[in-house]
Amino acid sequence: MTTDNSVGSVTTETFTFAEDEPFCLESGATLGPVTLAYETYGKLNADHSNAILICHALSGSAHAAGLLDGDPEKIGWWDDCIGPGKAFDTERYFVICSNVIGSCYGSTGPLAIDPATGKPYGLHFPVVTISDMVRAQVRLIDHLGIDKLLCVAGGSMGGMQVLEWAAHHPTRVRAVIPIATTAHHSPMLIAFSEVGRQAIYADPAWNHGDYYDKPAKPDAGLAVARMVGHITYLSEESMHLKFGRRLQAMEKYGYEFQTEFEVESYLKYNGLKFTQRFDANAYLYVTKAMDYFDLTQPTGSLAASFAGASHVKFLVVSFTSDWLYPSYHSKRLVSALTAAGADVTYLDVKSSWGHDAFLLEVETMTNLIDSFLGRLVREEQIAVPLVSPARALMRVGAGQTPRAKLAESLA
Amino acid sequence: MTTDNSVGSVTTETFTFAEDEPFCLESGATLGPVTLAYETYGKLNADHSNAILICHALSGSAHAAGLLDGDPEKIGWWDDCIGPGKAFDTERYFVICSNVIGSCYGSTGPLAIDPATGKPYGLHFPVVTISDMVRAQVRLIDHLGIDKLLCVAGGSMGGMQVLEWAAHHPTRVRAVIPIATTAHHSPMLIAFSEVGRQAIYADPAWNHGDYYDKPAKPDAGLAVARMVGHITYLSEESMHLKFGRRLQAMEKYGYEFQTEFEVESYLKYNGLKFTQRFDANAYLYVTKAMDYFDLTQPTGSLAASFAGASHVKFLVVSFTSDWLYPSYHSKRLVSALTAAGADVTYLDVKSSWGHDAFLLEVETMTNLIDSFLGRLVREEQIAVPLVSPARALMRVGAGQTPRAKLAESLA
Repeated sequence: MTTDNSVGSVTTETFTFAEDEPFCLESGATLGPVTLAYETYGKLNADHSNAILICHALSGSAHAAGLLDGDPEKIGWWDDCIGPGKAFDTERYFVICSNVIGSCYGSTGPLAIDPATGKPYGLHFPVVTISDMVRAQVRLIDHLGIDKLLCVAGGSMGGMQVLEWAAHHPTRVRAVIPIATTAHHSPMLIAFSEVGRQAIYADPAWNHGDYYDKPAKPDAGLAVARMVGHITYLSEESMHLKFGRRLQAMEKYGYEFQTEFEVESYLKYNGLKFTQRFDANAYLYVTKAMDYFDLTQPTGSLAASFAGASHVKFLVVSFTSDWLYPSYHSKRLVSALTAAGADVTYLDVKSSWGHDAFLLEVETMTNLIDSFLGRLVREEQIAVPLVSPARALMRVGAGQTPRAKLAESLA
Repeated sequence: MTTDNSVGSVTTETFTFAEDEPFCLESGATLGPVTLAYETYGKLNADHSNAILICHALSGSAHAAGLLDGDPEKIGWWDDCIGPGKAFDTERYFVICSNVIGSCYGSTGPLAIDPATGKPYGLHFPVVTISDMVRAQVRLIDHLGIDKLLCVAGGSMGGMQVLEWAAHHPTRVRAVIPIATTAHHSPMLIAFSEVGRQAIYADPAWNHGDYYDKPAKPDAGLAVARMVGHITYLSEESMHLKFGRRLQAMEKYGYEFQTEFEVESYLKYNGLKFTQRFDANAYLYVTKAMDYFDLTQPTGSLAASFAGASHVKFLVVSFTSDWLYPSYHSKRLVSALTAAGADVTYLDVKSSWGHDAFLLEVETMTNLIDSFLGRLVREEQIAVPLVSPARALMRVGAGQTPRAKLAESLA
């Protein structure tokens, strides 16, 4: 990853909102102080027109590309797509990624100190929404001196933020790329969220969210929540390819309850690993924000919500085997966007990787995003460096195995 | 349910295997004493040729039809399909349903007393398989004086038992009806099983299966396991129809973690209700049996496993929206059965009810099963009463709402 298609060593920066500008939440509550953790890659051009905001999914962070503090173990979650010559080409664009509020990677969330008590908020943290997350990002963009983003892109919950930008901040974006996402969370998505939350509630160590100064954390519950999530990120076909019915380090059934099948081992490993990097309360808040997301409201018409976005260019991407955010969600979105008069490119990418495809179908994503951004740059006359012929030849994707295919899901 | 299409009041009977005939399990362990709980409906004919065995799913019991001990609250789990004039017409057939070993409804399982200790087995109960469950049923059928079953039928895990009968006891059956099932548990099915088990393991009250004499049971973990299961029994479409994004007893978002969406309320209610009727250890054993099920073994060829079943008539049924046991599992099975030379009727029933369709699509199931059994009776010259013209007119299904559509899943 230190080859010349990496952005190299990066550091996460923070931005704390000015104290005299209170941050009002959709719920009516006020939150403060508010800090956002963010990273940037590439260079902002002279007229600040080449900035692309990347929005992360449920468990993501601001660390989207490169090696955090130079640590080769800490590769950004979308490093396959962000870097020199990659889909989001950092030689051409200024790429920003910020951690959402409510999360646990440096932005204000339940883990942060509540100024009223001097202790972590826990469940005293107010419920935040996708709208709140995006309005916090707007402040960051203001802070970075960017009037209009060239593009906002992201998959899964990242895609919800992307759609929120287009629907409610259309004057601040030229184009958006919502991937493997939905404009309103379905009852099945709510159901999976709720089961994850119930698994956390069921853990006595959760203690109604008050565990930060206790010896035990609700790791068991959080691990179960993550295991449920992991199943939904895969497809039956990808599970068959990855695991089949293969046994783990044994020749035949042991007739006991130890882990036997490879797929069981995979789930347990990822459940456990997740508890080392994520906070149970943050899991509650972020999933709740997703459940509340519904751009058909307040009018009941999705097209009406995008009425102000007729000048925004959309690249909508779904994946055929994604049963968590099935293609028909994207197709409905495309209908609504078309009705709203927007310029929409849509692809339902054939893939066996399920929801995780947005992280794994690197070659397809690279080609799609590169072409879309190339057209955008031409049509909107954005001043960015040309792709050098040498770089064009070594475009990432061709024949490469994406790193994430072998690692855990970052959805 | 006391109208003339119910079998009326029923009682669950038990059969305990003779002590001098040890019951050997697939694992090599020996289990004893072994008791099976069972119910029967209708009358066995003179030559004992009209017996139909019904096999239940994961959480089912021997109580498949009628009112248990006359209690109108205790209706059998497949009462919509078993009774006078119903799919399994008790005026024509002698219908048997037995609780599987490893379960908790009167058959020997982890809740039973271990003769070695005088206490409930708990995790000392041996791991049982679908093969073991069916070989126990064979003993029951012997006990009832039935040489050859007219038919074995069941959905989901019941369908696995059905296929096990056809593959490994083909001389004991004339026909089988496997519904919404698979001949080998896929990695996704194993993954969902394992997450349910992990939810139980994560509950401190589970205490490694040793909780029967403790004040607390692992209800929280079992409820989470059941909630995961419930999602998989529905479809996105059925969830949309049943719940949509409707809120429970509120007009707008509360911005808190109380139950808000109807689908959340449904899951919590069913999770809790399940803990009042099922045993956590039994959940572990029964799901494990399903995970082990793989009729492609030992040769790798599903057709080879059915080599002895070429004389058996099959009615295979799947449902278009069942993503837990997708139709292609049934289609593969049909290919293998056809290759084995069996008489196979297959229907992929268009339904929006997901896996639960096997309990809910009563009219379609009634028509299918009735026609199939009718042909069987004619072709095999089985002596059963004719359907009276009056009864034929009042065939169940037409225009009726199946009771289960409004109740909890019994999968």
